[in-house]
This record gives sequence, structure tokens and C-alpha cells, in this order.
Amino acid sequence: MKEGLPKGLQELILYFSRFPGVGEKSASRMAFSLLQKSSEYIESFGGVVQSLPKSLSHCSQCFHLCEAEEELCKICKNPKREDTLVCILESSLDLLALEESGSYTGRYFLLGGVISPMDGIGPEELRIKELTEYIKRICPEEVIFALSSTQEGEATTVYVSEILKKYNSDLCITRVARGISLGSSIQYTDKNTLERAFSGRGGV
Amino acid sequence: MKEGLPKGLQELILYFSRFPGVGEKSASRMAFSLLQKSSEYIESFGGVVQSLPKSLSHCSQCFHLCEAEEELCKICKNPKREDTLVCILESSLDLLALEESGSYTGRYFLLGGVISPMDGIGPEELRIKELTEYIKRICPEEVIFALSSTQEGEATTVYVSEILKKYNSDLCITRVARGISLGSSIQYTDKNTLERAFSGRGGV
Repeated sequence: MKEGLPKGLQELILYFSRFPGVGEKSASRMAFSLLQKSSEYIESFGGVVQSLPKSLSHCSQCFHLCEAEEELCKICKNPKREDTLVCILESSLDLLALEESGSYTGRYFLLGGVISPMDGIGPEELRIKELTEYIKRICPEEVIFALSSTQEGEATTVYVSEILKKYNSDLCITRVARGISLGSSIQYTDKNTLERAFSGRGGV
Repeated sequence: MKEGLPKGLQELILYFSRFPGVGEKSASRMAFSLLQKSSEYIESFGGVVQSLPKSLSHCSQCFHLCEAEEELCKICKNPKREDTLVCILESSLDLLALEESGSYTGRYFLLGGVISPMDGIGPEELRIKELTEYIKRICPEEVIFALSSTQEGEATTVYVSEILKKYNSDLCITRVARGISLGSSIQYTDKNTLERAFSGRGGV
């Protein structure tokens, strides 16, 4: 597809095609659409890309992304967030989805992933030490786990909650409800989800 | 979704979301996937973007993309391509798709689009003058139109072929066959395509 194209364009298509969910055809389309823009626009886009690493940092408390020159993210700096609740998530993208839903008003802590021996991720790759220090410091009433609903996520939830219990046996540790997604029909729901939905059933 | 994110990242997501076929969720995913890369990788990606306008130019003969310092593209410079055939296309992306298929070995000419009064594109926006000069210069035996199979594409084919006939009434002017796509079933083929497929039917 790319043979015969100028090298600069070929390189750009290659970069685009490395993004998740972007195939070679979409990458070409993206590169060609960029060609329609003004030199100033392209210059400015490239500048934003280049300055990305220097433009941000991680919050020293919850590890969400924040501006480079700041120590705490906007959520940790917000005095209106409830200090009694800490929600444990994997990544900033999970945090954004949860914030978007508006269903949570407490604090966050980003673990940095889940334990996954297949991918070479052991407990030491996660921010477990930072989490225990954070919990000891702010003493919340409840810690809510909202890790991926996968085997790895479940195992990590159990593993980390055991560690937290050791430090404070009175801490209320919960996890988000698992069940049938809104809009799903029973016939298309997988076996494991159905099992959980029935064992976790509640009043109407 | 983007509130609470560092400004640099928000800007990047905005740029990504302006690409065709990239929604806000995909744009965020792309920006976050870039965050996982090394500073050197990001630096180099931004550099490739910034140097794009200066890294390419248009072939002075067929108007396909070529390296900045060169006058002719690789296809026009290739002595093995048949000079007796010229295929008229809209854009470089069409040319790439045709080259990929390997079904054509002649020369090309990129018209730059099709006449579309709704989009404010009149005949003067297209490279009709350059085309007639090119045809006069190389005197091909046949000119093949392969513009979009839309009302605008059909009208442009008729319009431009009339102009070419004025210059050389002996020139063989053709257009690519229109019919049922490979793998399509009759029941899902639209009325106009079926009409063309029947009126253009041939021996088995």
C-alpha cells in the first residue's frame, strides 16, 4: 500500500498504525487527512506531541495524571471529595470513565494494573506499598475495589485486600457489584456473569 | 471525559479526535497509548509530523505525491510503465489502492477530485488544463476514467472526456466497468448497481 509514497509520509503512516485499533488503511487515511491541513496546523500538532512527556506528571497521592509542575491532581486537590472513601482502580482511563459517569465522589488510588503472571506483572510491579501508606495516612472508612472483572482482576482484589486487612482489620473493604450490564438481554449474557448475577440477586 | 486531565494531554486528544473515523474515546485511547512509549519515541513521532509538509511535494506530471526534492514520482520515473495508457483518478489514495491491486501497469493522472457544486468544487478547481497538456504531450492510445461511482464522478467523467475529445477525436476514452462487487450477493445489491450490471452483461 505504502510503496511509492514519500518516505516522510510512509513513516507517519507507520507511527499511526501502531496506535491501538488503528489498522494500515485507517493509518493511511489519517496521514492523508493531515496532508489537507495547513503547515501551521501540522507544526502545532507535532509540537503538542513532542511536548507531551514534559507537560505532565503523576499525582504523588493517587497517581492519576496531573500537570508537570504540580504535585497533586485536580481530584486530590478538591476539598469537596469525600475523604472517607477510596476507590482502587487500575489506570487513569478507568478513573476518567468513572468520573464521566458521575457515580462516585470519593478519593481514588491507581494501582497501575493487575497481577498477571502471564504478562510478567507480579505484585512488586503494582503500587501496593504506596497504597498502604496512603490508606494509613488518610484512614478512610471504606475502600472500594473496582479492578477489571477478569480472573487477574479478581485475584488482585483478593491479594491487595488481604494486605490492607493486615494493617487495619476494621477497614470496610468492598468491591463494585458484578451483574448484568444495563441494556443486555439474558440470552446473550455469558455463563459466569449469569452465575454472579443470580448469586448476588437483591430485592426489587 | 477529558476534564481533570493535564492540558497537554487534553490538547493531544483534541488533535487525535479530528482525524476521520476517530471518536473521542478512540482519541483518548490513542493519547494514553502514546504515554506508554519512551520520550525518544514520542519526540521522534512529533518530529515526523512536523517535517511532513517539507518532506513531500507533488509530481509535476501526474500530481501523485513524491519526495520534496524530486520533480517526478516513482511511477512517472518508471520506464516500464506503459505510455499508451493513462488512468484518470481523483486522489493519491485511489492510486495506492489501484497499485496495491496490481491490475494496472500504465500511467496515471490525478484530477484532484470531482465536480461537485454542492461542495463548491467547479471544473476550475480540478486539474483539467494540466490533464489536456499531459495528454497532448504523451499522446496515449487510451484514457481510462476511474473516478468515484457517484453522480458527481459520472458527471465529471462525461465533462472531462468531452474536453479530451475536442483535442483529439481519435483518442480511445473508456471507463472502468461498473457491476456487482466480488463477494456481493444479488439480494443485497442496490437497484442502480443491478441495472448497470444487467445492461453491461457479457458472455460467461
